Amino acid sequence: MTQYVYGKNVVHQLLKEQKRIYEVIVSEGLKDRELIKALKQRHLTIRSMPRKQMDRLLKTEHHQGIAACIDDYKTYSLEELLETIPEGKTPFLIMLDNLEDPHNLGAILRTCDAVGADGVILAKNRSVSLNPTVAKVSTGAIDTVKVAVVNNLSQTLVRLKEKGFWAVGADLERSIDYREADFTVPLVLVVGSEGFGIRPLVRKNCDYCVRLPMVGTITSLNASVACGILLYEVFNQRDHR
Amino acid sequence: MTQYVYGKNVVHQLLKEQKRIYEVIVSEGLKDRELIKALKQRHLTIRSMPRKQMDRLLKTEHHQGIAACIDDYKTYSLEELLETIPEGKTPFLIMLDNLEDPHNLGAILRTCDAVGADGVILAKNRSVSLNPTVAKVSTGAIDTVKVAVVNNLSQTLVRLKEKGFWAVGADLERSIDYREADFTVPLVLVVGSEGFGIRPLVRKNCDYCVRLPMVGTITSLNASVACGILLYEVFNQRDHR
Repeated sequence: MTQYVYGKNVVHQLLKEQKRIYEVIVSEGLKDRELIKALKQRHLTIRSMPRKQMDRLLKTEHHQGIAACIDDYKTYSLEELLETIPEGKTPFLIMLDNLEDPHNLGAILRTCDAVGADGVILAKNRSVSLNPTVAKVSTGAIDTVKVAVVNNLSQTLVRLKEKGFWAVGADLERSIDYREADFTVPLVLVVGSEGFGIRPLVRKNCDYCVRLPMVGTITSLNASVACGILLYEVFNQRDHR
Repeated sequence: MTQYVYGKNVVHQLLKEQKRIYEVIVSEGLKDRELIKALKQRHLTIRSMPRKQMDRLLKTEHHQGIAACIDDYKTYSLEELLETIPEGKTPFLIMLDNLEDPHNLGAILRTCDAVGADGVILAKNRSVSLNPTVAKVSTGAIDTVKVAVVNNLSQTLVRLKEKGFWAVGADLERSIDYREADFTVPLVLVVGSEGFGIRPLVRKNCDYCVRLPMVGTITSLNASVACGILLYEVFNQRDHR
């Protein structure tokens, strides 16, 4: 199956990765010479259309005048994902429970790419799926970070723990300061949705939970910000200097 | 001047802070009993209207059926902001250059509240202003974090440095690893917009710049995520354990 993705950053990233592009659509009068030159060098089929028509086709106005038709985003099974982790590397996976905001998922994928995480695990019916908004916000990380889609997060945690992973949840309640945790072990970090956190059954399958200290009046951070801080703590503890 | 702000979290936070509310608007059929009870206990004027009418009044559909009329958000001059910093505390300010996305500003205010930052500095014509979207995304931090609006960021940096502040920019180019920086000094952290970074003249007035290490293919993080990671590094270096 194919799909349209849009935005200048997204198309730039597709070109950089030599990804298969079936067709490019540009809005009439698009002035980005550099981008158009790059498209022509790749001998891509370029179709020009009025901006309004493009809005209708892509069901958004936020396409920045450019879209590309590509294969659907590849997702993995848990086994496939685990097989891609290089031998000798201490695995680091991120599980997202109930995340509904595509902007948060896109921003999290971006941070996962930055810290070299081995993959993200989403539940089939409990998360926003990989869509063009996620792709645009991820600025290309949707293609570099491996995403596994599973049926059941709790069962997945049980299987990962059998394989030697530590399951660490991010939660305010009954948790330790994130700076006291040991993130140098094989790790699956579980992050919940904004507002609702991790569901009880998923939390029950975590070995323990960590929290970010907060000294103000607000009781939670934005989900992608909190996730970013935790991801860099893992990265730093693993001594990437 | 007064303004309407909206969203359940925002109204909850207003009630918690005993903020002056001139009027509450709820959409007909709003079912949040707890919230309505809290409003009635405060003897607030509650006006009910059809959802469509509310959409028009607030110029958005994302109000969750509730809005409050309150005073405009208070902003400070640089002098006023500096005077609010308790004596003996090592000051920590965040300057945002060119930030245009209200979601990023809201998320950053939230993190500023969490780490107990002393304030945020925005340029009058070079930033998104404090608006209802910022308020909603900030989940109330717009009222707890002090925001100074200045005419010129470069001149502001010069004045802060005269007062003993270190000006540290966040930038990929010609910068040191953020973990090597000393954040235990009086600090103004300068964060640029997504895509464009800090403007050259503002950068020139920074003492030095820091970057987040990234090992993947993506070249930048979401602005509020990057800012969050830096803010927690400052927080941690100041030994809040």
